[in-house]
Amino acid sequence: MSDEVDAVLAQVRERVTPDAAERAALADVVETVVERAEAAVADLPVDADVVQVGSTARDTWLPGDRDVDVFVCFPTDVPRADLEDYGLQVGHAVLPEGHEEFAEHPYVTGSVDGFDVDLVPCYDVDAATEIKSAVDRTPFHTRYLRARLDEDTATEVRVLKQFLTAVGCYGSDLRTRGFSGYLTELLVLEFGSARAVLEAAADWSPPVRLDPADHGEAEFDAPVVVVDPTDPERNVAAVLSAAVLASVQHYARDLLSDPRLDLFERREPDPLTPAEVRAAIDRRGTTPVAVRFDAPDVVDDQLWPQLAKSRTGVAAELDRRGFDVLRSRAFAADTAALLFELSVATRPRVERHEGPPVAVRDHAERFFDTYADDASVYGPFVADGRYVVERERAVRSAVEFLESDRLFDVGLGVHVESSLAEGYDVLAGEEVAALAEPFGRALAAYFDPRP
Amino acid sequence: MSDEVDAVLAQVRERVTPDAAERAALADVVETVVERAEAAVADLPVDADVVQVGSTARDTWLPGDRDVDVFVCFPTDVPRADLEDYGLQVGHAVLPEGHEEFAEHPYVTGSVDGFDVDLVPCYDVDAATEIKSAVDRTPFHTRYLRARLDEDTATEVRVLKQFLTAVGCYGSDLRTRGFSGYLTELLVLEFGSARAVLEAAADWSPPVRLDPADHGEAEFDAPVVVVDPTDPERNVAAVLSAAVLASVQHYARDLLSDPRLDLFERREPDPLTPAEVRAAIDRRGTTPVAVRFDAPDVVDDQLWPQLAKSRTGVAAELDRRGFDVLRSRAFAADTAALLFELSVATRPRVERHEGPPVAVRDHAERFFDTYADDASVYGPFVADGRYVVERERAVRSAVEFLESDRLFDVGLGVHVESSLAEGYDVLAGEEVAALAEPFGRALAAYFDPRP
Repeated sequence: MSDEVDAVLAQVRERVTPDAAERAALADVVETVVERAEAAVADLPVDADVVQVGSTARDTWLPGDRDVDVFVCFPTDVPRADLEDYGLQVGHAVLPEGHEEFAEHPYVTGSVDGFDVDLVPCYDVDAATEIKSAVDRTPFHTRYLRARLDEDTATEVRVLKQFLTAVGCYGSDLRTRGFSGYLTELLVLEFGSARAVLEAAADWSPPVRLDPADHGEAEFDAPVVVVDPTDPERNVAAVLSAAVLASVQHYARDLLSDPRLDLFERREPDPLTPAEVRAAIDRRGTTPVAVRFDAPDVVDDQLWPQLAKSRTGVAAELDRRGFDVLRSRAFAADTAALLFELSVATRPRVERHEGPPVAVRDHAERFFDTYADDASVYGPFVADGRYVVERERAVRSAVEFLESDRLFDVGLGVHVESSLAEGYDVLAGEEVAALAEPFGRALAAYFDPRP
Repeated sequence: MSDEVDAVLAQVRERVTPDAAERAALADVVETVVERAEAAVADLPVDADVVQVGSTARDTWLPGDRDVDVFVCFPTDVPRADLEDYGLQVGHAVLPEGHEEFAEHPYVTGSVDGFDVDLVPCYDVDAATEIKSAVDRTPFHTRYLRARLDEDTATEVRVLKQFLTAVGCYGSDLRTRGFSGYLTELLVLEFGSARAVLEAAADWSPPVRLDPADHGEAEFDAPVVVVDPTDPERNVAAVLSAAVLASVQHYARDLLSDPRLDLFERREPDPLTPAEVRAAIDRRGTTPVAVRFDAPDVVDDQLWPQLAKSRTGVAAELDRRGFDVLRSRAFAADTAALLFELSVATRPRVERHEGPPVAVRDHAERFFDTYADDASVYGPFVADGRYVVERERAVRSAVEFLESDRLFDVGLGVHVESSLAEGYDVLAGEEVAALAEPFGRALAAYFDPRP
């Protein structure tokens, strides 16, 4: 067994190591970009350091990765407005065809010889604890890792990244909520190899806490805590969700007990056709309903948390109203959709409404008086020591709920809410098959959820 | 308000006081029965006291009550078999047309001049704490109450009994689970009048504990505890259910805030016809299902607890299977029925089955391995950190459940179970209208539950 795991990992190591030509091409691009940036900095009225950061700076990038990140680090006495001006000036000088984007600061992104280059200004602070914005931390991470990673451990980082990517758990974006590159690198340094990380993770009982620099004092509320060795106040794994952690534990055990290369290859199911979606619904006997709307025009890191919030909010409300949500899923491309698969499509006209125990006199009398002369209810009567009325149910079907303004009483993500306010479709039963375009692949995974 | 209550109570006092003719008729019967019993006792080889017990002995009986209870109290050294022989001998002498029944002992019951007479043997123990069977306690209760009740308080007992009877809360049988006569009498002695009892009860926050003789040390688990003044180990209100107590609290408040005579008159709704039952079902939009079977041939105090146990057991199982029981009711005459009114008639083919958290490795791996190669399930997949499968639901409708042997997996009352084993009908939807014969009146109360 042990040998089989090693045999698979040896093959993976081969595959994830960029070849000489790719390395040379990258080195050329980095040299060009750094030289151009340094020349542009020389023209500024202030001094600044040009540093390469990110996985390509740490030799932990995967073949085919085309991201070159170069930071320009300004002294902390440069006013923020100047820093932004200078940063853009350098960016446009390095990337004359580039365009501006905005994260913590505006920055310039563009392309050089087929590589995607970001030119980002930051402050050259003395310690990661003194940062003025999140990007200021990045050079610390790169310095920390460059001092500790060697060729072997860098290869192990690649192996682990490849595995996490293949099983859909790599990325600290707010859709994935998985493992960041930095987290992956720290874990390999902590445990020594990709295999050691996976063996440890397979056995984890969250919450798990690691503190490579042994300097953390803060408490963090997260399934995995890895105290940033450059900042004791920061959990590197803050974004990692319990759900993704559980997936990784599953796949790690799978790899260790049944080692095979295909766990390092991303599985993409064939998209379902509308007819296949209809067949899947029919087989399950459930009632699917969906809300389809224009995807709000915001970045993914805004969109996906809002979709998640909207989906869980609507699902909880459908549950509360007795429609028993079996599963739900959010989809987004140009159009977005929230799918809810229900066990119960409709509810009867009457619903039970429990009042206080009769013994709690004040409350009980108030409840009784409220309904005593209400001809629209059954009761109030006494059941199990409480007053109860059976009253007319406001919403008898999930479709009725989704089509009504009550949908907006749910806590929706702000941009999802405004998009819905402009209009949406409700699909029910076999109509949900229309989601096969463009979400056929996601629906295939939904209806065949086996990992 | 206060005067209105008193005015109503004054009218009730008139109505509940037996007139001279009825009293004279009762006195004649009692005299006849006691004389005959004493004569019969004189023929026995042992001595025994003949005592009248029960409400007719305490002057707390209601007009129209026809129950005369006469006990023959034997010395404790008479063997039980002899006591039973002697008791029957006396009984048959007093009631030549009577027949034998069986409670704690066999006894003779019969009719004298239109009154129902029970002739019951018991032991003449020194204290109620030394009784050999429950009937031995009765003479103690009668002696205790005769020493304390006067004409006014006896009238108040009648008023309270009339009220409790009218609102369906009088009787310590196991169908009613309400107030016994002795409990009613003790409450009037404790509070001084029917009105004072109702004012106190309206304010009770259970558990409530009263100890007229101030000698109780035992703890009782009951909503109302009234320590028997003749036996510190006994709760006179042990049978009283929380549900009946709540009803009494409701009606007591109703009387005090809106005093009226009709609260002292038993309301009997008109029985529903089958067509009216169908209309009621249609109005509510629910799915009623019923199990109809031959009523087991046991006394009511056995039957009703078994019906209650069967009803709550089946209702819990229907709930567990997702059919959402809105209300349920048991009915019994020659035929018996358990009615369940459902909010959900059918469930989809798949149901969610949650496994352990993935992090609990041993359990998680066992769960995963159980289903990994099971083509009949969806998954196992990871959701919210747990393994989940969606598997085929065993029972998709409530009718299917009720018609299957699974019904017998529920904890049913023993005689209900054996009656069901001999055969039963399942009625669904409008078929339930067939229960209108013979349960039309109970169904009327069911569909119009306002007190």
